[in-house]
Amino acid sequence: MTSIAPTPDPPYVAVIFTSLRTPFDGGYAQTAAAMDRLAAAQDGYLGHESAREGIGITVSYWRDESAALAWKDVAVHLAAQHKGRDSWYSDYTTRIAVVHRAYTKASSPLVESP
Amino acid sequence: MTSIAPTPDPPYVAVIFTSLRTPFDGGYAQTAAAMDRLAAAQDGYLGHESAREGIGITVSYWRDESAALAWKDVAVHLAAQHKGRDSWYSDYTTRIAVVHRAYTKASSPLVESP
Repeated sequence: MTSIAPTPDPPYVAVIFTSLRTPFDGGYAQTAAAMDRLAAAQDGYLGHESAREGIGITVSYWRDESAALAWKDVAVHLAAQHKGRDSWYSDYTTRIAVVHRAYTKASSPLVESP
Repeated sequence: MTSIAPTPDPPYVAVIFTSLRTPFDGGYAQTAAAMDRLAAAQDGYLGHESAREGIGITVSYWRDESAALAWKDVAVHLAAQHKGRDSWYSDYTTRIAVVHRAYTKASSPLVESP
């Protein structure tokens, strides 16, 4: 995932998932790719961004919190979450946030009024 | 930055900065490290997480939006932002969000009530 998610104007929901991996593989990359495809097919999915460099950071964007929660509870995703907790991640934090302001390089006000 | 930021209980503010780099170096790593140190010294700073793998994702956490805005407007940080826009980043998006719920591996409810 090497592109910036083309999200609409705020407000929308961001789910920030930060993780540390164990050395265990067990199909991690295949499951991650399958979860990316499945998430993208969910109602209310707006996009996601992901990078791992020691720490892994995945931010997924959703129309609203109910869309984010619905994805969390999709059965095959729940199975992946369980395997993540038990095998793939030595630690992780999930934060659910509401994006209320955003700007891009093209629209960037480097000095803005508070 | 290979640790998960030990943020307090929500609510707090997350600034999600997603970027694509140009091939231009020009002291990027040194400036990034200096900005990390300077940010950590700001009032209201709670922590940050950062990874680059094609795309770069940096999430910084702040007590409230005024603390995040104050950091944005620190003079030496503004200079770095200008250099980022002009030289280091081919594209970027900054999203300001309020984290209202968070859980860790230790506290994680894999199935939670909506």
